Amino acid sequence: MKSYSKYLWFNTKNKQELINITPEVEKVLRESQIKEGLCLVNAMHITASVFINDDEQGLHQDFDLWLENLAPHKKDRYKHNLTGENNAHAHLKRTIMGREVVVAVTEGKLDFGPWEQIFYGEFDGQRRKRVLIKIIGE
Amino acid sequence: MKSYSKYLWFNTKNKQELINITPEVEKVLRESQIKEGLCLVNAMHITASVFINDDEQGLHQDFDLWLENLAPHKKDRYKHNLTGENNAHAHLKRTIMGREVVVAVTEGKLDFGPWEQIFYGEFDGQRRKRVLIKIIGE
Amino acid sequence: MKSYSKYLWFNTKNKQELINITPEVEKVLRESQIKEGLCLVNAMHITASVFINDDEQGLHQDFDLWLENLAPHKKDRYKHNLTGENNAHAHLKRTIMGREVVVAVTEGKLDFGPWEQIFYGEFDGQRRKRVLIKIIGE
Repeated sequence: MKSYSKYLWFNTKNKQELINITPEVEKVLRESQIKEGLCLVNAMHITASVFINDDEQGLHQDFDLWLENLAPHKKDRYKHNLTGENNAHAHLKRTIMGREVVVAVTEGKLDFGPWEQIFYGEFDGQRRKRVLIKIIGE
Repeated sequence: MKSYSKYLWFNTKNKQELINITPEVEKVLRESQIKEGLCLVNAMHITASVFINDDEQGLHQDFDLWLENLAPHKKDRYKHNLTGENNAHAHLKRTIMGREVVVAVTEGKLDFGPWEQIFYGEFDGQRRKRVLIKIIGE
Repeated sequence: MKSYSKYLWFNTKNKQELINITPEVEKVLRESQIKEGLCLVNAMHITASVFINDDEQGLHQDFDLWLENLAPHKKDRYKHNLTGENNAHAHLKRTIMGREVVVAVTEGKLDFGPWEQIFYGEFDGQRRKRVLIKIIGE
């Protein structure tokens, strides 16, 4: 069994961003030379997400509004923010979107359906954060 | 390390359906002859889900109502639907339910608790879509 | 390829609890002697969750209120409860929080960001339930 790890760094311009990281994951998969196995991609910070969906700008705006409705910023609503933080909403948004994805590797490629793309979802940005890619297989 | 892949096809009669696919996954696991490892089961389309819960009809109706409340159809609410689609709600519903499950394989079986069953969750059906099963181990 | 499994048992004092299980998972990882691979941790019951977030009491109270708002107890609201159960809300809460996490194992350790901790989320407690830890790798 082979294994291969790589970390991607982010420091987003905006507090919230959705970034397509599929090309980076494909690059790391090629470096790994693994042909059959599983590829884990996860946010290493608890106010960020890695998820799979469509690379369509309208949908991304829909996600923003929808998440704001389900888990609004409103600083005073959250006990977590009594610690001096103001990012409780970001912990909740990331919970909806998910921490990680596991993708099958088949014949050296991410075994994806026609529209699947991997995104980094930042909900409390403007600081340095990491994503982990770990591939195991043969 | 062994690996084994299989695709399940769906073309649901209704726009939304929850289908128990546990027997199909167990069949693929037997074919694989893998005794210890991990089994990934994921939707390959971004308006569908694979998740684990209870095979109880009342609960499935509860899921339907709950998801409709959290992410209503309302076509005009979503920017994604300006592209000619009307399935933005289905992208959001699948986000709540999740894209994938990873199940432990122990002594040649899905290592499940008493009520765990694997479901395909279709939220924009009446067209051909796939689920991927990928098992790695020994 | 090596694999290693262990089950953790819970019987919570309260109906709902969030319990940090990171030390237990780290102990099982050391026992496994696996240095590079993947570690699956999942709830084996469908009204409980395993998730990764921050070990901060205020945030945990925020999670409780937020989940109660998204999926209230209200017994009469749910068809599932016509079966004699009163835990439909717990099935929904667990869906939001997720069934499982997959964590990378690197140099014999959980490959975590600075604040990542693994929690058992119980939403219908006061009975015996299990969590599964399965590690594969080398």
